[in-house]
Amino acid sequence: MDTLRVLLHVNEAERWGIALANITNLIKDVGQGNADIVVLANGPSVSAYAYSEKVETMEMLAEKGVHFLACRNSLRKMCAEGTVCINEEALPSFVEVVPAGITEIIRRQHQGYAYVKP
Amino acid sequence: MDTLRVLLHVNEAERWGIALANITNLIKDVGQGNADIVVLANGPSVSAYAYSEKVETMEMLAEKGVHFLACRNSLRKMCAEGTVCINEEALPSFVEVVPAGITEIIRRQHQGYAYVKP
Amino acid sequence: MDTLRVLLHVNEAERWGIALANITNLIKDVGQGNADIVVLANGPSVSAYAYSEKVETMEMLAEKGVHFLACRNSLRKMCAEGTVCINEEALPSFVEVVPAGITEIIRRQHQGYAYVKP
Repeated sequence: MDTLRVLLHVNEAERWGIALANITNLIKDVGQGNADIVVLANGPSVSAYAYSEKVETMEMLAEKGVHFLACRNSLRKMCAEGTVCINEEALPSFVEVVPAGITEIIRRQHQGYAYVKP
Repeated sequence: MDTLRVLLHVNEAERWGIALANITNLIKDVGQGNADIVVLANGPSVSAYAYSEKVETMEMLAEKGVHFLACRNSLRKMCAEGTVCINEEALPSFVEVVPAGITEIIRRQHQGYAYVKP
Repeated sequence: MDTLRVLLHVNEAERWGIALANITNLIKDVGQGNADIVVLANGPSVSAYAYSEKVETMEMLAEKGVHFLACRNSLRKMCAEGTVCINEEALPSFVEVVPAGITEIIRRQHQGYAYVKP
């Protein structure tokens, strides 16, 4: 079976639960080695990487190979707006920060990743 | 004209109206034989297949060739949570149950289907 | 670098702010000449082209090459429902009206545009 490449786009905090359930179901369905899964968080959803009871589930999925990305523009905007300032160094080690989430979403699709908006 | 292949992803019950209107407009615009339309419902939206005044419209569209899919994981989760238990046999005959909706969404895109989230 | 082709799908009025911020970030990140950006508005979001403080930002982005499209089906439906009647001639000159937004979304993906739902 070909590897199933997918980028899940999470831009609202309240969609994390559904996104993580989707990923869990995907891995259960096709097997850990048959999927290449990237999660791109931008907008208010990035704060979940720092403040959320979901981090434990994310970490467990990261250990299975899921890539979690955070948009730097979004982190800065939330700080500038006075919502919350999250230092990149304070993010869990499994989270990779990318300069612009929107660019990542487009580039991955051009590389053959399917797009899912949970 | 090449066939327009598309998967519409419906994961919230309140988006069914928009999704069905999109499909109706698409068929009207390009003609019934020029589109290959798949609707994948996961999450709470699956219950509309059993309990909704939309079923009549869905059935009419199914007769025009639209494929309606339901995610088995979602059906089971809703029953386990005590929301609603829908027996697969009780679903309308035009609905096909797939093991994991998320896998279907990815696979179809890899097969060349466009993705739309109404 | 290859041109980044993308269609942003806006079907809810309240998502315009996020969509326009995404576009601004994308242009800032990759440079004006390296992205081919199309915005497709259908559903209630089309009214923002006529009545919104966002039009100025849209116009500025249009001058940078962003294509703004409006779905004719949606304009007519909003008028028929008594929500608001927007004459196509009254739309800003940078807005192009397409017969069916849903067809445009699919066709652009088949032409190699990535899909983003802000």
